[in-house]
Amino acid sequence: MTTLDILKSARSAAPTLRGVDTATKNAALNAMADALIAGQDGILAANAIDMEAAKGRISDVMLDRLMLNADRVAGMARGIREVAALPDPVGAVISHVERPNGLIIERTRVPMGVIAIIYESRPNVTSDAAALTLKAGSACVLRGGKEAFHSALAIVEALREGLEKVGLDPDLVQLVRDTTRQSASDLMTAVGYVDLLIPRGGAGLIRAVTENAKVPCIQTGTGICHVYVDAAADLDMALDIIENAKTSRPSVCNAEEVCLVHRDVAAEFLPRLRERLVDGRAANGLIPVELRLDGEAAAIIPGTPAGDKDFDTEFLDYILAVGVVGSAGEAIAHIAKHSTGHSEAVVSRDQAVLDAFATGVDSAAVYLNCSTRFTDGGEFGLGCEMGISTQKLHARGPMGLEELTTYKYIVKGNGQVR
Amino acid sequence: MTTLDILKSARSAAPTLRGVDTATKNAALNAMADALIAGQDGILAANAIDMEAAKGRISDVMLDRLMLNADRVAGMARGIREVAALPDPVGAVISHVERPNGLIIERTRVPMGVIAIIYESRPNVTSDAAALTLKAGSACVLRGGKEAFHSALAIVEALREGLEKVGLDPDLVQLVRDTTRQSASDLMTAVGYVDLLIPRGGAGLIRAVTENAKVPCIQTGTGICHVYVDAAADLDMALDIIENAKTSRPSVCNAEEVCLVHRDVAAEFLPRLRERLVDGRAANGLIPVELRLDGEAAAIIPGTPAGDKDFDTEFLDYILAVGVVGSAGEAIAHIAKHSTGHSEAVVSRDQAVLDAFATGVDSAAVYLNCSTRFTDGGEFGLGCEMGISTQKLHARGPMGLEELTTYKYIVKGNGQVR
Repeated sequence: MTTLDILKSARSAAPTLRGVDTATKNAALNAMADALIAGQDGILAANAIDMEAAKGRISDVMLDRLMLNADRVAGMARGIREVAALPDPVGAVISHVERPNGLIIERTRVPMGVIAIIYESRPNVTSDAAALTLKAGSACVLRGGKEAFHSALAIVEALREGLEKVGLDPDLVQLVRDTTRQSASDLMTAVGYVDLLIPRGGAGLIRAVTENAKVPCIQTGTGICHVYVDAAADLDMALDIIENAKTSRPSVCNAEEVCLVHRDVAAEFLPRLRERLVDGRAANGLIPVELRLDGEAAAIIPGTPAGDKDFDTEFLDYILAVGVVGSAGEAIAHIAKHSTGHSEAVVSRDQAVLDAFATGVDSAAVYLNCSTRFTDGGEFGLGCEMGISTQKLHARGPMGLEELTTYKYIVKGNGQVR
Repeated sequence: MTTLDILKSARSAAPTLRGVDTATKNAALNAMADALIAGQDGILAANAIDMEAAKGRISDVMLDRLMLNADRVAGMARGIREVAALPDPVGAVISHVERPNGLIIERTRVPMGVIAIIYESRPNVTSDAAALTLKAGSACVLRGGKEAFHSALAIVEALREGLEKVGLDPDLVQLVRDTTRQSASDLMTAVGYVDLLIPRGGAGLIRAVTENAKVPCIQTGTGICHVYVDAAADLDMALDIIENAKTSRPSVCNAEEVCLVHRDVAAEFLPRLRERLVDGRAANGLIPVELRLDGEAAAIIPGTPAGDKDFDTEFLDYILAVGVVGSAGEAIAHIAKHSTGHSEAVVSRDQAVLDAFATGVDSAAVYLNCSTRFTDGGEFGLGCEMGISTQKLHARGPMGLEELTTYKYIVKGNGQVR
């Protein structure tokens, strides 16, 4: 099947889900979870083929992401059942207006239609994305990474069995067969076939989408996240927040990459920062953080001198760029220039600084005295997410089920004309 | 000033509006309205230059759109004051969640930043767009049609005086000087400078944007709108609705272009339709509608045989394509294939048909027993609009002030880490 064949059959299948009630969608999701468990042997066998082919060609971290076992398949099934338990976003009346002429105008949440998702090697994204899309009332066209192709195909086959079991069209969940760049490009330009394209991946994929996409897209994921330590900060709190934001999971998009410190506390704070992130961690057998220091910070503590790009890099590693600023306003201006608009935090006891930061920083999530690591669908109480949007149109921050829908106006009359 | 210079100064000006309160924005809007009235002579003189240059080169209808007089300038000023009177969308807390860990997560409506608008010859769009954008908290970069350039420049100068009078940055409202295609293309590709691009124009502009835009866009306007007359329709009501939808203002995007009639009532309805739209109007000195008939309709009434493209054309004229269908489902399928997703109506007394149409038709506005002509910000109670979105992402249907904003999450903590 070509990518266009798949898009056409998804386009045909999508309307069949429009009138389907919540109970049927939930039954389908539970049947999909059952089918994953029932098909576990086949899925693990397919995954073994992918693992064998990938060995020596991708890093151990990537191999671990790719690997499936019975626990992980059970986790995927559990993830699908959690989506079934979430409220159905479709059909909600967002606003209801009765006009003087008697027209009743209802803004009603409805499915997107066909949602395409481009992602990389983690097999569980396949089942998560399919479950969220189905619950949101849309057909999904999945385009995973080539390393995980056999795993994804086996997972999709199981999910389609689940759909068929409850009488839904299996073409509501489909996997693109071509894993070359061509298929990603095909999806980006499939005007009329794709209502929403969600690229989940690194900066390269996001750039390709910005350059080439002709279908509506939501950009996700790239995070150059800042923590600003104000002159009025509780420095103990700042250390806790920074160690958490930088080291609890450095490879994720909501991890801190840059620390800005107010000049008035730099001489006191920076030595403590170095002790906490570098020497203290090494002494405790933890991976120390490499500090990349601007000139002013370097005059206070030892560390790597920051290069040209260190304040514009998503390290995704145990590396932190550190700079000194003269005011909260300077920190806000620095963030406006260097941030990707994902997540930024301020640590301060000064309410005026907190307010200025909340108003002045134009990012998806702004944290006042807490860690950037909370930018996550689960942590926000959305139950789950399809990714973190860093754009301003339609969805910003964690995308839950509502963000995977659109709305239309249904206008009820009895012969009104204008 | 080059287009890039203008974009850069708009980018710099945009943050200055972020913390500005509603009273100041409203004072600015009223000062802008005052400045229009005070500057009326200069604006009319500039308009006279445009009118002189345009005479003989554009149609009388277009000349009338371009023409300004004291009444129209007063109307523009009134339009700005109406925007001042609307509720401020910025700062509203859309959702407020307190998490078990004590984090308070507020989803707050915030400005887009820089909104660019590409439009055509009506000078009032210049002041409307600037007023809506300012109230929504964003800077605007306006790119009007070349026929109206001098008028638009004089209007923008007056609006900027109004901004300065209340101490706001005049660069919040700017007009692109280049009126060639190059500047439209510059705006479409100004990644990092434009947060939202709204093209307001014909199918050609919308196509160019779909093909070339790399910045976030909202497509507006093209409307191939359908009215379906069901077997269970009140035929008198259907005639009223169709005459209104087709003839009250044929040049607008919410006018009807296609009528679909159920086979069971075609023999009774079509002769009455012809009488109402063609012979009756001619007898009353009104412009008769040209009917373009599919084979089945042509067997019942006289009219022009429909050509290949007549069911896929936005006529914007006294022309109506008429087809016969065998069921509501067939009408819904026809609409799915031929509609631009703008506005569609059904006339029926059968609740099951109304429900099926409301669920099955995937357009911005679906009308049950009323005219498609109501798709309009004012008619929907939004007070005003920036255009009608025919896309599914972010905004669908009439775009009011809320649709010109985005949101961000502000998360308040006291040291929480993850």
